[in-house]
Amino acid sequence: MKEFFFPESVAIYGVSAAPGNIGIGVLENLERFSFKGNVFLVGEKGGSVKRRNIVKSIDEIESTPDVAVFIIPATGIPDKLDECGKKGVRYAIIESGGFSEFGTEKESLEKEILRIARKWGIKILGPNCLGTINLENGLVLPFVPFRRGFMKKGPISLICQSGGLLHDILLLLSCENLGVNKLVSAGNKLMLDENDFLEYLIADPVTGTIGLYLEDIRDGRRLAHLAASTEKPIIVLKANEGAGSSHIAKFHTASLAGDDLLADALLHQTGIHRVHNLDEMVNTMKIFSLPPIKGQRLAVIARSGGHAVTATDAVYRHGFKLARLSQEIFDLVGQKKRVDVIRATNPIDLGDIFDIDFHFTILEKTLQEEGVDGVLFIHSYDLESDGDATLAFIKKINILTRSQAKPVIFCMVSEKEQWFKMKDEASFPVFSEADLAMRALARSLGHFKRKPHNKSAKHLPGKHDVKPNTFPQEKSSYMASHKAFELLRQYDLPVADFKIAENFKECREATHRLGYPVALKTASSRTLHKTEKGAVRLNIATDAALKEAFNSMGADAYMVQKMAQPGFELIIGGRWDPAFGQVLIFGMGGVFAELFKDISVRMIPVNAKNAAQMIGEIKGSAILKGYRGKPPCDIKEIARCIARVSRLLTDHPEIVNLDINPLIAYEKGKGCVIVDAKIETIG
Amino acid sequence: MKEFFFPESVAIYGVSAAPGNIGIGVLENLERFSFKGNVFLVGEKGGSVKRRNIVKSIDEIESTPDVAVFIIPATGIPDKLDECGKKGVRYAIIESGGFSEFGTEKESLEKEILRIARKWGIKILGPNCLGTINLENGLVLPFVPFRRGFMKKGPISLICQSGGLLHDILLLLSCENLGVNKLVSAGNKLMLDENDFLEYLIADPVTGTIGLYLEDIRDGRRLAHLAASTEKPIIVLKANEGAGSSHIAKFHTASLAGDDLLADALLHQTGIHRVHNLDEMVNTMKIFSLPPIKGQRLAVIARSGGHAVTATDAVYRHGFKLARLSQEIFDLVGQKKRVDVIRATNPIDLGDIFDIDFHFTILEKTLQEEGVDGVLFIHSYDLESDGDATLAFIKKINILTRSQAKPVIFCMVSEKEQWFKMKDEASFPVFSEADLAMRALARSLGHFKRKPHNKSAKHLPGKHDVKPNTFPQEKSSYMASHKAFELLRQYDLPVADFKIAENFKECREATHRLGYPVALKTASSRTLHKTEKGAVRLNIATDAALKEAFNSMGADAYMVQKMAQPGFELIIGGRWDPAFGQVLIFGMGGVFAELFKDISVRMIPVNAKNAAQMIGEIKGSAILKGYRGKPPCDIKEIARCIARVSRLLTDHPEIVNLDINPLIAYEKGKGCVIVDAKIETIG
Repeated sequence: MKEFFFPESVAIYGVSAAPGNIGIGVLENLERFSFKGNVFLVGEKGGSVKRRNIVKSIDEIESTPDVAVFIIPATGIPDKLDECGKKGVRYAIIESGGFSEFGTEKESLEKEILRIARKWGIKILGPNCLGTINLENGLVLPFVPFRRGFMKKGPISLICQSGGLLHDILLLLSCENLGVNKLVSAGNKLMLDENDFLEYLIADPVTGTIGLYLEDIRDGRRLAHLAASTEKPIIVLKANEGAGSSHIAKFHTASLAGDDLLADALLHQTGIHRVHNLDEMVNTMKIFSLPPIKGQRLAVIARSGGHAVTATDAVYRHGFKLARLSQEIFDLVGQKKRVDVIRATNPIDLGDIFDIDFHFTILEKTLQEEGVDGVLFIHSYDLESDGDATLAFIKKINILTRSQAKPVIFCMVSEKEQWFKMKDEASFPVFSEADLAMRALARSLGHFKRKPHNKSAKHLPGKHDVKPNTFPQEKSSYMASHKAFELLRQYDLPVADFKIAENFKECREATHRLGYPVALKTASSRTLHKTEKGAVRLNIATDAALKEAFNSMGADAYMVQKMAQPGFELIIGGRWDPAFGQVLIFGMGGVFAELFKDISVRMIPVNAKNAAQMIGEIKGSAILKGYRGKPPCDIKEIARCIARVSRLLTDHPEIVNLDINPLIAYEKGKGCVIVDAKIETIG
Repeated sequence: MKEFFFPESVAIYGVSAAPGNIGIGVLENLERFSFKGNVFLVGEKGGSVKRRNIVKSIDEIESTPDVAVFIIPATGIPDKLDECGKKGVRYAIIESGGFSEFGTEKESLEKEILRIARKWGIKILGPNCLGTINLENGLVLPFVPFRRGFMKKGPISLICQSGGLLHDILLLLSCENLGVNKLVSAGNKLMLDENDFLEYLIADPVTGTIGLYLEDIRDGRRLAHLAASTEKPIIVLKANEGAGSSHIAKFHTASLAGDDLLADALLHQTGIHRVHNLDEMVNTMKIFSLPPIKGQRLAVIARSGGHAVTATDAVYRHGFKLARLSQEIFDLVGQKKRVDVIRATNPIDLGDIFDIDFHFTILEKTLQEEGVDGVLFIHSYDLESDGDATLAFIKKINILTRSQAKPVIFCMVSEKEQWFKMKDEASFPVFSEADLAMRALARSLGHFKRKPHNKSAKHLPGKHDVKPNTFPQEKSSYMASHKAFELLRQYDLPVADFKIAENFKECREATHRLGYPVALKTASSRTLHKTEKGAVRLNIATDAALKEAFNSMGADAYMVQKMAQPGFELIIGGRWDPAFGQVLIFGMGGVFAELFKDISVRMIPVNAKNAAQMIGEIKGSAILKGYRGKPPCDIKEIARCIARVSRLLTDHPEIVNLDINPLIAYEKGKGCVIVDAKIETIG
C-alpha cells in the first residue's frame, strides 16, 4: 500500500491540451504541492501541456510508473488498465465516475475491471474517487483543486468515502488550525476498502488521529480488529443511516437493534469514536490534538461569573468534576484581587484581575497542581485593549503545553477580524465554549480508559468465517418450534418442558405427562408475535380448558408446554449483520424492551465474562441485581445462557435470526427458563 | 420600562479624569454609537473629561435625567440613589459589583437599596450588570467597551444574566452576520428580573427573536404566561443546572423530576426553546432568522453524493422527510447533466453540472414547487474557480428569499480567508452542515406547530397564588398515612379500603371487616420507601399470617389495607418548585419509573384534557392503550385521577410534596386504585 502514498512516479491517464480538460487538475495539484517524483501524462491525442509532453500510450514511457491515475470515461478503463498491467503497473487509482453509483447496470463494467486487476495483480483505489494525498511528499492526486491554504501538514489522516465531504472536513480543520497528513478518497471501494487504508495509517508513524467518513461499513469485524490493535484515536462519521437490510429484522429482538443502533453499539464496543456530524468530528479531532486527559478532576478558570457557571455545568454534564485546589493557588489569586471578598473555590473567577500575564501564571500553577488532571480556561477579551496581551498569552500557552502531559482546554470567542488570526497563533485547539469542549474531552477520557480493556476484540474471528455469504439474496426458512427448542436444549439451554401433538388426544396425553398448568401454542414456526394473533393460550389448568383452547386454534400441529412460574422476563437474540457478521443481543423482555430499547449488543463470540458485562450494561440490571429489597436474579445463569447462545450461533453460521423471548429469570440459584424461541436459517 | 431603552438623558455616576477610571467606559460607548440624548457625568472630584464637565452632584444638573447609571463602590450607592430619588430620577442601573454575588453578608446592602428605591418609586436594573443597549438610538450603557464591529442592527434582542456571556453571544452572532436590537444585562436581578424585560421586548415592534441567558428562573409561571402571549421565538440558555433545592425532592416521584429535568419539561411545555450551549443558541437564532417552515417536506440539493447522503440522514434524523418533486424539476436538471444516467430523485445530486447560475435556477424552481416546504441546499465550491460565482449565487438567493415565505436552508464551508466575507454577503444564515441546520429547523417547525395549542398557559394562575412563600426555610411535616388517605378520598380519589389499628385485636377486626387478603403497614408517615425497610407485608391471607406480620413489625400504629388486584402500576406526584410553583408529575410506576424516568410534568392546574395529554406523552402510554393484544387500561379514569390531584393541590398550597405510588390501573371501565400515598406540608 505504500505506493499509494510514496510513489516515485505517477502516470496520469486522461490529460489533454484541450480547454476544460479535467485530468490536468491532477498535474496542477502535484505542481502546487511540489511533488518531487516523476509525473507522466497519458492522453490519446498526445501533444503537450504546461511544457510537458503527453504520451499517447504508457508504452512510450521507458520506466514503469508506480501508480496510474485514471480520469477517462468509465468504459475506456478496462483497456487502459490492461495496458498498465502489461507494462508492470501494480497500483491504480480510478477517479472517473460512471460506475455502480449510477445503478446496477454498471456492475458488469466493475466486474471486468476487477478481472483485469486480478489478472495482473493490480491494486485498485476507487472508482469514483479523488485518490490519495500525502503532505509529506506533496503527492496530491485529486483532479479537483486542493490548495495549501487549507492543507497544513499535521498528524491527522483521513479516509473519506466522498470527495465532497473530504473537502469540507479539510476546510473545517484548517479553520481550527489543525494539520493533516495522509488522505484517501475511497469512492466505490471496488477492491480496496477503508480497512486496507486504515491498516496502513495505523502503522504509519506520523499519523496520530485517524478520521473516517463511511457510507457503508464493509467489514465491521476487521474494523474492530484494527481498532483494537492501536492506541490511535479513530473517529468515524457513518452516514447512510436509513439504509441497510431492514427486511432481515423480522424477529422481535433483532428489530430492536436496527442497523444503525447496532453500528453505534458495536463501534462503541471497539473503542471507535462515532460522530454524527462534521462539527462533532472536528471537535473530537481538536481534543485529540491535546495530551490525553487521565482523570476527571478539572480546574476551571474564567474571567466572568457567567463563564464560570456555564463551564461548571459543562464539567459535570460530561462526567468530569471540579478538582480540589491547594491554598497556594488561592493565595496566588488573592494577590491581585481588588475586591475584599476572595472566594477560595474552583472555579476560579478572575473577576477584577485584568493582568493577562498574571492569568497565565495562575493557569501554569494550577495545571501543575497534583490534584488537577487538566485545566479548562475560559478566556475573554476586548480586541483593542487586550488583543495584544491575548496574543502574548497564547504564545505562552504554546510553550507551556509543549512541556506538559496534561491538557489545557482553552475557550475563547474573538471578534471576526481576529477570529482566525488568534486560532492560527495557537498550537493548541481553541474552543468557543465549554460545553462542546467538555463533550469532546469526555471522549478523550473514555478513549484512554477503555483502550486497555479492549484487547479482546483482537481475538474476534473474522466476519467471513461465520457469515452466510449470500444472505439476504438466498431464501431463508424458519425452523419448526420443536426443532428450535431441541437445538437450544442440545446447547444446554434451559427450555421449558414441551411436547408436540397433532390432535386433541395427543395434546391431552402430553399435558398429563407434563402436568397442569400448561400453555398451548400452534406449532407453526411462521406465526410470529403469537400473543397478537391469539395463537397462544396460557395457564390451561383443566382438560375442559384444554379442549376449549384446542378447538379455538384449529392448527395442524400444537406445542404443549409446561407453564413457567412468573419471574423476570429477558430476551436473548442473535442476528446476522452485513457489516459485523453474527451479533448477539441481550435485554429486558416484555413490552419494555420495545418501548425503552434497553439492550446490549456484541459481536459473537461472547463468553461468560463478556455476557456479565452485557448484563451490567442494560439499565434493567439494577433490577436484576436486586432492587428495593427484592432478591437478586440468577445473574450467573443468565450469563451462562448468553454465552451458550453465542456458542450455538458460532457453530451454526446458517442462523441469520434467533429470538429467545422470553427467558424468564428467577432468584439467585433458581436458574432461568426459556419459554419461547424462534430461529431463521438460510441454506 | 421604555426609559431603560429610550431615555432622553442619562447621568453616569462614577466618572473622573483619573487614569483607569471605569465610569468613562460608558461615555466612550455612547460616543462610539452616537447616542443623541443628553449625557451628564457625575463624579465626586468634579473636573472634566473628553471636553465634558463632571458635576460633583446630580443637583448641579438643571433638568432631571431619565436614567442614572452607577459605577461607584457598592457601599456608596444608597446615598447617591437617595439623591437621585430626591432629584426625580425614576430609573437606575447599578453596574457596580460587590453585592449578594459575594455572599449573604452583602444582602443588607441590597435591602437598603431596595428600601430607598421603593421610597422614591425608582426601578432598578442590576446590581452587578452591564445595563442596557439599544441599537435604535445608540444607547450603549455598559462600562466595558462594546463596538460596532460586533453589533450590527437587527431583530434579535437579548436578556443576559452575565455580561461575559452577553459579549460572547454578540461576537458569535456577529460571526453569523446576525443583527441585534435591544440588550439587557440583568445581573443580580435585585428588583427587575428577566420577565420584566421579556414583557417589554415581546411588545417591542422591532424585536423578532428573544434570547435569554439565565442562571436562575425567578418566576416560571410568569415566564410561561409571557411565552404563551407571543408568537416570537424565545430561546433560553438556562445555566446553573446542578443548583437548586435538591433537598426538597424527598419523595420518590418528586425525585424523579430533578430541578433541571423539571425546568426542561416546563420550558418545553410553554413553547420556550431551551438550548444547552452557545452553539445551539446561535444555530437556533439563525434558523429563526428564516421564514418559518410550515411542514416536513424538504427538497435536498447538493453538489456531491456525500453531501446528498449526509443531508438525507439529517433530514430524517430530525423529523423531516424528502418531498416528492415534479417531473419538471427533473427535466430541468436533466438539461445540463452530462452523464447518461439521470436519477429522478430527491435529493438532487447536481453532480457534473458546474454552472452555478443554473444551480440557482434549480433552487428557485424547486422552492416554488407546491409539495415543497423548504429547500436544503448544500453548496460547495473552489475559491479560485467558483469564488465569484458563489458570491453572485448568494446575492441572487438574497433576493429570492426576500420574496418567498419558505425557507432556504443553505449550507456551505468556505476557506478561512473567505469565511466571513461569504457569510457577510448573505442576508440569510449560512450553516456549515446539514445536521446542525436540520436540528435547528426542527425547532422552527415545532415552534409554529405548537403555538396555537399553547393558549392554555395564558390562564395559568400566577406562581405566588399557590406558593408557600417561605418554604423551604419553614419546617415541613409529613401527614399521617390515614390522614393522607382521607384527604385523597375527599377529592374522590380511589384509595384502597383501609383501617387504622393500634394493637393486634384491632388489626384482626379491621381485617375481618375488609376481608382477606390484606396488606399490613406501619402507620408512621415518616417511613419512606417502605419495601426497603420491610415495613410492609403484602398478601396476608390468614389470621396466623396476620399475627406473624404484626409481631415482626412492632410499630405503634398500623394500617390494614385491602389488597388491590394486580394491574398496571402508575405514579402521580406533586411538588412545589421554587421557579414554577406547584407542579404535577405522572409516570410509569414500579422500578421502571426510576430506571427510565418515563414521566410527564405540568404546572397545575391540570384538567382532564391536559391529563390525557400527559398520559399520551409517556412512552408507557403504548402499554396503557393496549399492546400486543392486551386490553387497554382505564385511561379516562387515570386522567380523572390526575385532574383530581391537581384540584387537591390547588386547594392546598401548603402541600409541598405529594406521592401517590402506586396508582394501580385496571382494564377500561374497571377504574384504578391508590395503594399508597404520602403527603408533606408546611405551615
